[in-house]
Amino acid sequence: MEKGALLYEGKAKMVYQTNDESIVWIEYKDSATAFNGEKKASISGKGRLNNEITSLLFTKLHELGIESHFIKKLSETEQLVKKVDIIPLETVVRNLAAGSFSKRLGVEEGKELSRPIVEFYYKDDELGDPLLTEDHIEVLQLADKQEVALLQEKALQVNAVLRDFFKDLGIKLVDFKLEFGKDEAGQILLADEISPDTCRLWDIETNEKLDKDVFRRDLGNLTDAYENILARLGGQTVCTK
Amino acid sequence: MEKGALLYEGKAKMVYQTNDESIVWIEYKDSATAFNGEKKASISGKGRLNNEITSLLFTKLHELGIESHFIKKLSETEQLVKKVDIIPLETVVRNLAAGSFSKRLGVEEGKELSRPIVEFYYKDDELGDPLLTEDHIEVLQLADKQEVALLQEKALQVNAVLRDFFKDLGIKLVDFKLEFGKDEAGQILLADEISPDTCRLWDIETNEKLDKDVFRRDLGNLTDAYENILARLGGQTVCTK
Repeated sequence: MEKGALLYEGKAKMVYQTNDESIVWIEYKDSATAFNGEKKASISGKGRLNNEITSLLFTKLHELGIESHFIKKLSETEQLVKKVDIIPLETVVRNLAAGSFSKRLGVEEGKELSRPIVEFYYKDDELGDPLLTEDHIEVLQLADKQEVALLQEKALQVNAVLRDFFKDLGIKLVDFKLEFGKDEAGQILLADEISPDTCRLWDIETNEKLDKDVFRRDLGNLTDAYENILARLGGQTVCTK
Repeated sequence: MEKGALLYEGKAKMVYQTNDESIVWIEYKDSATAFNGEKKASISGKGRLNNEITSLLFTKLHELGIESHFIKKLSETEQLVKKVDIIPLETVVRNLAAGSFSKRLGVEEGKELSRPIVEFYYKDDELGDPLLTEDHIEVLQLADKQEVALLQEKALQVNAVLRDFFKDLGIKLVDFKLEFGKDEAGQILLADEISPDTCRLWDIETNEKLDKDVFRRDLGNLTDAYENILARLGGQTVCTK
C-alpha cells in the first residue's frame, strides 16, 4: 500500500489517498482542540495515543461483531481505513449526564440516565455543531428516517459493547461521539475514531476524568490520562517523563 | 363568576382564582418581552390585542373541532379558561424557516420546509428554554412517549387549520408556539394563547412582519402590526392615533 496525496486535513487527523481508491491512509496529529476550535494546543504524543486506542477499540468491536471502516494500524500514528463519505452528523450516546447535556438541561454531572440516549448534532463548524431533532435531520436532508433509525441502533449496539468492555477495565463510559460514513456500495459504516478525544471516560472508583475534559477544563496532564486508558486497554504505553 | 386571588404572574399574563376551582381568570398585560426577558417594554394596548386575537382564534379552533382551555372573553383584556397544569414544554410548529431555526441551522429565513415540523423546547427561563429531543423529554420525565406523540399530532392539527385560515386572510403562518396542559381528569388540552406574540405572521404579498419580531427586531410599531392582524380576523380594532 502506497501513501498518496493529502485529501483532507481535519482538526485531529490528516487523510491521504492510497493506490487503492477504496482505502485511505490516516495520520493522527498531536493537536488538541476544544469548544469548536476556540481552545487549541499541540500535545506531543496525543496523535500516537489516539491512534493506538482507536485501533485497539475498533479491533475489539470487530471481534464482538461490530464492523467499522478500520483496516489496520500501520505505525504509532497511522492507520488504514476504508474510504467512506462521512454523514454530516455527530451521533452522541449518553449513559450519564455530563458536559453540554448537564449544562443545557440543568442535570447534575454524573447522574445516571434512566436509559442510554442518542443525540444527533449537525457536523458544521461554522454553525457550532448544533443539536438536531429527527425532523431537522429530515428537512435538512442530512439522512432519511430509515438511516436515522439505523444510526441509533448501531450507536446503541456500540454503547452496549463498549460500556461492558470499559467496565471490566474499571472505567465508566459516560458518553461518546461516533461518526458514520457510506462506503462505495452505499452501506453505512462506523467511521472516524473512538478515543479519549471522543469519549468521556471516568475511573469507576475515583471518578477521575481520563478524557479530553482534562484539556477542556485544565484538569492536569492530558497524555497521562490517555496513557492510563491505553494501559488499561493492554496497549503499549510509552514513558514520556 | 368572581375573580379571586392572584395565582401566578407571568411575563404576559396574570392568572387569578375564581369561585370555581376548575376555572381561572386571565388578565393580559401590556408588557412585551423578548430574548428570554432580556428585552422588555410596556406597550399600551398590547394586552387588549392579544386577548382579542387569542379569543377569536380559540373560538375559531373550537368551531373547527379543536378544543382548548378557552371558555370565554370577559373584557378587552380578560378571559376565563379551564384550569390546567401546564406541561413544561413549548411546542413549536414551523412551516417556513425563520428565527432561531434559520440562525442555528443556517437556513435562509423564509425558505419553505418540505413539510411542517414540530419542535419541543424545555419551558425553563433559567435554562433559556433549550431545544429538546424526544429522548430528552423522556429521560427528564417531562412527558412520556405517548404524550409526546399526542402533542405532535395536536400541534400539526392546529397548524393545518390555522394555516388555511390565515391564508384566506392574506397571511403566511410561518411558525408558532403552543403550550398544553392537563385538566383535572388528566386530559391534555391546548392552553396558553395564540397571538402575534406566539406566532410569526407575514403578509402574503409583501412579507411584512405582523408579529413580535416587530418588537424583537425594532421594525416599527408593534400595535399597528397587531391591529392589522385583529382587523383581518374581523375583530373590533381601536384607533390609538
